[in-house]
Amino acid sequence: MRSGRFISLEGGEGVGKSTQAAMLADALRGRGLGVLQTREPGGTPGAEAIRALLLDKQYDWDASAEALLFAAARSDHVVHAIRPALERGDWVVCDRFVDSSRAYQAGGDDLSDDAILSLHTIGSYALMPDVTFLLQADGAAVAERLAARDSDGADRIGARSAAYHARVAQRFRDLAAMDPERFVLVDASGSPHDVHLRIMRAMAPLLGEGG
Amino acid sequence: MRSGRFISLEGGEGVGKSTQAAMLADALRGRGLGVLQTREPGGTPGAEAIRALLLDKQYDWDASAEALLFAAARSDHVVHAIRPALERGDWVVCDRFVDSSRAYQAGGDDLSDDAILSLHTIGSYALMPDVTFLLQADGAAVAERLAARDSDGADRIGARSAAYHARVAQRFRDLAAMDPERFVLVDASGSPHDVHLRIMRAMAPLLGEGG
Repeated sequence: MRSGRFISLEGGEGVGKSTQAAMLADALRGRGLGVLQTREPGGTPGAEAIRALLLDKQYDWDASAEALLFAAARSDHVVHAIRPALERGDWVVCDRFVDSSRAYQAGGDDLSDDAILSLHTIGSYALMPDVTFLLQADGAAVAERLAARDSDGADRIGARSAAYHARVAQRFRDLAAMDPERFVLVDASGSPHDVHLRIMRAMAPLLGEGG
Repeated sequence: MRSGRFISLEGGEGVGKSTQAAMLADALRGRGLGVLQTREPGGTPGAEAIRALLLDKQYDWDASAEALLFAAARSDHVVHAIRPALERGDWVVCDRFVDSSRAYQAGGDDLSDDAILSLHTIGSYALMPDVTFLLQADGAAVAERLAARDSDGADRIGARSAAYHARVAQRFRDLAAMDPERFVLVDASGSPHDVHLRIMRAMAPLLGEGG
């Protein structure tokens, strides 16, 4: 039984996903809803331990091992955090979910989308979000935001080439086009508050607040 | 290009796989062959890090996450150790490989053999051993050997019930029956030297030493 709603936020590095996830979770709590705000890879002790392996530059994971590790982390996250939250009626706001694997591992490397989805079926019981907000910003604005972050903070994946990240962005747009029922494209330009208002407008039908 | 030979040793806990792997590797070296003696899960720094997560009792991996982690470790092992060894013409002697995942994860839990093999195809490029020695011992002898080990040494998987391990043993026999070309059943009773002689007799054709 699943009575809560499951919302994911997706997009490339530096588009403001975690800020928006926090603002969305607060807005839902303000409406009296139980909310689990979480992120991937991570969200449970097991998944956080896998996240640490994934981002550690001492390991040279090839594309397949990386995809399998992300799927293992997601499986733990679904089993021990997301599914229990949905079953007790809470709403789940998740910063990245399976579409990130589809965009980063299938888009940026040589694994097929079907392969990633088969891992998701095995590991996470094919659980999909009810709504996925895809945050989109132009390259210059993102570059500025990323430059403002501590440069030591660039991890094994964040440190990849601009061409890699451009392929990822295109792949996200392709996924959204393939599944327009689930994806909502969000213009991530302007202030965090501007972006939040765009997200809340799109949330209205789900919240039963008219449209 | 792959000119070396790939030999795996399989079987339940306490049947003497690691002793036999070491004796077989020594015998091959004694014939002037280059040998990589390795084990799973593990065999590379990345795979050993995953092994540590798998065996750590603080994590409550469900069957799917466990299968994905084993597949990720195996992928790293194949990419960074086994395949390079085979390509330079070395022989590989591996204590456990994909059949352990098929017996432990698909046999002991609720994942299908097809699911495990699909993970192996994605992660390890479907690499299969040339020969797999399945070591078989009766339950009483194994119980005695396991009891002789330090009881603190029982890990998250070794500590599972006798019924679980009986299902695993049956599953190994089923896999061998499904693939008689690759599997060689080895009676693991008697001294380590007795068992080694049985293995070397079965190795003769592969070594071009007549049969």
